Amino acid sequence: MRRCVLVTGPSGFIGRQVLEPLLNRGFEVHAVARHAGGTRGVSWHEADLLEPGEAESVVASVLPTHLLHLAWFAVHGEFWTSDENVRWVESTVRLFRAFAVDGGRRAVFAGTCAEYDWNYGWCSEAVTPLRPHSLYGVAKNATRELVQATVQDAGVSIAWARIFFLYGPYEHPQRLVASVARALAASAPAPVSHVAQVRDFMHVTDVADAFAALVDSDVVGAVNLGSGEPRTIGSVAQTLGSLSGRPDLVRFGERQARRDEPPFVVADVRRLREEVRWAPRRTLETGLADTLAWWREHPQESAAPAERRAL
Amino acid sequence: MRRCVLVTGPSGFIGRQVLEPLLNRGFEVHAVARHAGGTRGVSWHEADLLEPGEAESVVASVLPTHLLHLAWFAVHGEFWTSDENVRWVESTVRLFRAFAVDGGRRAVFAGTCAEYDWNYGWCSEAVTPLRPHSLYGVAKNATRELVQATVQDAGVSIAWARIFFLYGPYEHPQRLVASVARALAASAPAPVSHVAQVRDFMHVTDVADAFAALVDSDVVGAVNLGSGEPRTIGSVAQTLGSLSGRPDLVRFGERQARRDEPPFVVADVRRLREEVRWAPRRTLETGLADTLAWWREHPQESAAPAERRAL
Repeated sequence: MRRCVLVTGPSGFIGRQVLEPLLNRGFEVHAVARHAGGTRGVSWHEADLLEPGEAESVVASVLPTHLLHLAWFAVHGEFWTSDENVRWVESTVRLFRAFAVDGGRRAVFAGTCAEYDWNYGWCSEAVTPLRPHSLYGVAKNATRELVQATVQDAGVSIAWARIFFLYGPYEHPQRLVASVARALAASAPAPVSHVAQVRDFMHVTDVADAFAALVDSDVVGAVNLGSGEPRTIGSVAQTLGSLSGRPDLVRFGERQARRDEPPFVVADVRRLREEVRWAPRRTLETGLADTLAWWREHPQESAAPAERRAL
Repeated sequence: MRRCVLVTGPSGFIGRQVLEPLLNRGFEVHAVARHAGGTRGVSWHEADLLEPGEAESVVASVLPTHLLHLAWFAVHGEFWTSDENVRWVESTVRLFRAFAVDGGRRAVFAGTCAEYDWNYGWCSEAVTPLRPHSLYGVAKNATRELVQATVQDAGVSIAWARIFFLYGPYEHPQRLVASVARALAASAPAPVSHVAQVRDFMHVTDVADAFAALVDSDVVGAVNLGSGEPRTIGSVAQTLGSLSGRPDLVRFGERQARRDEPPFVVADVRRLREEVRWAPRRTLETGLADTLAWWREHPQESAAPAERRAL
């Protein structure tokens, strides 16, 4: 049986890591982006998903059986509040309708832990209330509701992956792990603010591999993509310091803390483990070591241009 | 101004550690138990709190300004489901009424993390639903509701401390930390079942010190007494193994897992930190080292007799 997946956002932070695991699982892989990339074995299609009609023609020409939709507005510092989020709600639903009408069978979407009410700290698909505190979270949550309402008629199997805190190669250099790793890789001081807040971190190649596993499964509904391992932000910075051999360069308290940072955001990963039957390959320690090594090799790298539009 | 605290359950697991911190804070300390103990500087009163009239006469003779009520039915393996829980609901409310009528100003009670709905994992006083899954939890929760309904008229300041997972000297030897520490102290194999479950552990002397701080504060309502630090049961056993110098004696999977163990139970400790302004003195590592040393010195110790009736 033909297994052909269309990937949106293939040049983004996660997207660039997801093509290979999909190929390894035997999928025929098609990628749609505004500018074609060069990954071997992947068919590239140029289109702007925000332009009505463009997604539809790619879908009509590829006739994918599977859809992995990662594309979204993701400019660092802007994506939480930008009106672009609303445009992506509309274009996502439009893309999904085209996919369903043209015979698509299984679709996986990138949701976010920001859909949950973070006052509850531990995020469980089954019980934790959804109460996004940002326009980004509201838009993702609304998209899920719209897609799930659409699917009832379409007969497509869909999963909604809620991503937690990811890090790794090509992360925007102003984000936490990247900023610390990049500074340490250059033997420069790394100012850090939040210390006690607990988060759920996962290396981006593991996140991408989990997406491929989810596409390849028949698990439906919301699934947390996290490590399930609670770690303080302070311990992440400290670990990077130790790995770099210069723990003295990690400067706690030298960066201003954002207000109202939630103290605890961690994923319940039972669905991911027991239903998708997937677990991360990297520990936080090996993931951070890889990230540090990557920044040593790419000292000048800033965010990939494509990250401006694709998570 | 006179500051005189009456402590119930003073010979129990927590109670035996709480008298000294209360004395250190300048309280006149009275302890009520069925059998008087010998702590210096403490006035002991013999009474059975379950017998109507006995609590009342102790309160009338002491006229305490503060009450710290730790006594409860706590027989290992039985306390979750025993009908004795219901007798303690009644006797607790009776004790509290006598305290309020005789001019008491501030009362602190031992509640439990088992009052929370553990499906939510992270337990926050402000938002996590209360849905106890055991008679013990239901009884504690009902007691809180009864006491709080009573207090509205009585004008007493009350705090309800929710205890998480504690360990340390005099713990019942069949409970997790004690069973592993005791076996390792005797260079015997320590079978362990649950590995991945995450809990919130705190050394009993820290729990007792937190109780003393809470008695000495004016914070009202439910307050989690936990470390706020998520740790897997497996890592606790492993740490004990390393500390003992015989990590090979920790035998994972050799003890049968209970069914339906919740994957995650951790305290939100913001009230404890920011309002009570208290933090534990021991890390998990130093607390476990202390516990291991204690079991080396007390190889024959089983649960203190008083633990049969007092937490």
